[in-house]
Amino acid sequence: MNATEVVIDNAHVPAAISALMTDYAHCIDNDRIEDWPALFTDPCLYKITTRDNHIRGFPACIMLCDSRGMLMDRVVSVRSTNVFEPHRYRHMVSCIQVVEAACDAWRLQSNYLVTRTMLDGTMAVFSTGEYQDRIVLTDGAYRFNERIVICDHGMINNLIALPL
Amino acid sequence: MNATEVVIDNAHVPAAISALMTDYAHCIDNDRIEDWPALFTDPCLYKITTRDNHIRGFPACIMLCDSRGMLMDRVVSVRSTNVFEPHRYRHMVSCIQVVEAACDAWRLQSNYLVTRTMLDGTMAVFSTGEYQDRIVLTDGAYRFNERIVICDHGMINNLIALPL
Amino acid sequence: MNATEVVIDNAHVPAAISALMTDYAHCIDNDRIEDWPALFTDPCLYKITTRDNHIRGFPACIMLCDSRGMLMDRVVSVRSTNVFEPHRYRHMVSCIQVVEAACDAWRLQSNYLVTRTMLDGTMAVFSTGEYQDRIVLTDGAYRFNERIVICDHGMINNLIALPL
Repeated sequence: MNATEVVIDNAHVPAAISALMTDYAHCIDNDRIEDWPALFTDPCLYKITTRDNHIRGFPACIMLCDSRGMLMDRVVSVRSTNVFEPHRYRHMVSCIQVVEAACDAWRLQSNYLVTRTMLDGTMAVFSTGEYQDRIVLTDGAYRFNERIVICDHGMINNLIALPL
Repeated sequence: MNATEVVIDNAHVPAAISALMTDYAHCIDNDRIEDWPALFTDPCLYKITTRDNHIRGFPACIMLCDSRGMLMDRVVSVRSTNVFEPHRYRHMVSCIQVVEAACDAWRLQSNYLVTRTMLDGTMAVFSTGEYQDRIVLTDGAYRFNERIVICDHGMINNLIALPL
Repeated sequence: MNATEVVIDNAHVPAAISALMTDYAHCIDNDRIEDWPALFTDPCLYKITTRDNHIRGFPACIMLCDSRGMLMDRVVSVRSTNVFEPHRYRHMVSCIQVVEAACDAWRLQSNYLVTRTMLDGTMAVFSTGEYQDRIVLTDGAYRFNERIVICDHGMINNLIALPL
């Protein structure tokens, strides 16, 4: 790897893009999940997979939505369909790296850590892994065209109700 | 939510403000808690509460200081009054979002995760939650006018000696 | 502490420097450890120590490399020599603070949290602590001249195979 080229071309994460990534986390963590689908383009790709499957190119994944309608469906299932013990997530997002930059489309990767807190106060690190994003500028706003969530491990404790 | 407006108006977290938030964490984590009160205005509001209480508007909270003197009082209690097993925190702060920006006063929210390490090396994720800050420019420096710490859960393991 | 001076002189973390710190994390987390030594100057200082030893000035440490060759040696040992249960790290880096800024040399400190995931999916917060970095501009690229990893505790679970 030539450190120079990475640093000079792709060092700068635009503020509007990190604001989008932050908004994503706050929508989920602060119980505004209804606002979450609008952060994506339509169509889009939202996929939760495991690192092992991702590396080997296996198509099986934990969750896959390819339209804003499917994302909205997730919201409905969280709010009214799924039966699960209430809980909340808290996202930490770090090490955001620009992989490819164009004037209207960006590829980024970042690390995430999500904790989960149950009603009784029990808290645990629920999932860690990597986001691989394609973010595009459309109608004056940045939105996720793709967000691939690559979990470090596939042993999900119980279920994924809320998106990661 | 209209992503455009959020992105264009409030995307940029000024470097001086993120430096203040970082300094706050390092004061506590690196045993310079004596420097911590000076990061606040006088009067100020420093409050630790739970998400449930915050959402319902309940006034009860875990800690409340409304002047720099009360913050200094916390420092004295950590250094000489409280009897507790020595421990350290490590703060991770992420997903910093500008909620309101004016030339001399800012509202921001961010996610935090604090680990606690005891003398014997035992370490745990101690608290996660949200900071809601009002930061003002006064006498040429940015300071916390308000920092509300909203814990994801109220089950504090043992006690809060050090501030979160 | 005079908040003003800290804020005005050292608030801004250059994008190229945070890109270097991010690249460091991704090399390790995403199984590109062969790219890791090139992020350092030659000679360099890469040291993992505990907070207690660091504060007291004790020279004993958990790992010490002072040349790129020694770093490469670590890579070889991870890939072919050491016998250990396969695992991965995930780095979270936060609270990056500029301690000293010159045109071609920077001192920074930051907080880290590293999780470790085993093959069977078992995951734990493995280490938390502080990075103290000296980063220099050499041949057009930013590189670590020094990275001191100060662990909050010295009780390493099992072994450190991958660098922190």
